[in-house]
Amino acid sequence: MAKTKRIITILLRLLAFGATLTATVVMVTSHDSAEVLNLKFSAKYTNSPAFKFYVIAEAIASGYGLIALFLCSKSSVERLIVILDVVVAMLLTSSISAALAEAEIGKKGNSHAGWLPICGQVPKFCDHVTGALIAGFAAAIVYLVLNLYSLLVVLAPLFPVKP
Amino acid sequence: MAKTKRIITILLRLLAFGATLTATVVMVTSHDSAEVLNLKFSAKYTNSPAFKFYVIAEAIASGYGLIALFLCSKSSVERLIVILDVVVAMLLTSSISAALAEAEIGKKGNSHAGWLPICGQVPKFCDHVTGALIAGFAAAIVYLVLNLYSLLVVLAPLFPVKP
Repeated sequence: MAKTKRIITILLRLLAFGATLTATVVMVTSHDSAEVLNLKFSAKYTNSPAFKFYVIAEAIASGYGLIALFLCSKSSVERLIVILDVVVAMLLTSSISAALAEAEIGKKGNSHAGWLPICGQVPKFCDHVTGALIAGFAAAIVYLVLNLYSLLVVLAPLFPVKP
Repeated sequence: MAKTKRIITILLRLLAFGATLTATVVMVTSHDSAEVLNLKFSAKYTNSPAFKFYVIAEAIASGYGLIALFLCSKSSVERLIVILDVVVAMLLTSSISAALAEAEIGKKGNSHAGWLPICGQVPKFCDHVTGALIAGFAAAIVYLVLNLYSLLVVLAPLFPVKP
């Protein structure tokens, strides 16, 4: 039972690490430029605070994921890891929501505010951002599963099911 | 000890309920219009998907907060409440990040994408959104404290501190 639990946890952590690393790399390499009316127009992730926050959050989650992969089997830090998992899940959720809100404006614009969509001009940039968001979304879901799993496993002995 | 724990939890839940309710009401009542070059320009929260998501999330959190206030002392649902607290905290974090990213563009614009700031035209709308975001932020922090508190209290017996 303990061994199955450890294997499931390590598999989930590997998945989460891969997803966050992919999200970071794909977002950092996103770059495209276009020329509209002789005006050079360049799009990269550093142009937007939300995308910068996304890269920083995914990079932190990758680093933490790698460390947690080696430490999660040690019982002395198990309590700290359970709490840090929740914090990292919140960080990921927050960064994805911010980046998604900004990407939505980039994709569809907002006619009420007079903001035009930019994906028509810089399609390569938009594709990269979409890819990075999908990878980040997968990572967030893995962390959610990891949290619910460890909460259920950790909480189980405290609340025995009544017949 | 159990009584102190219950009083702290109820106080935190009351705070969180007040904050989410305030955030919902302030965001829903946000409305301003301006006339630029004979063009009527109206700003309300329904113009933005991120702000709509914010109102829905804060309303759900208010409803849950009210129910949890009455149920949290019953031990039969304690386990469910601990898990739902984490889910609500993530929902709040997500909605605040999305609304904040959109509000940041409204406040400062994004010169790279050609999006102009709108707060100069509709200051009353921007003030309401700022107020709603501050209330939502307070609610998210209260839920974070609530989660860490219940995690520490619940996890404590499982991981005794070694001398």
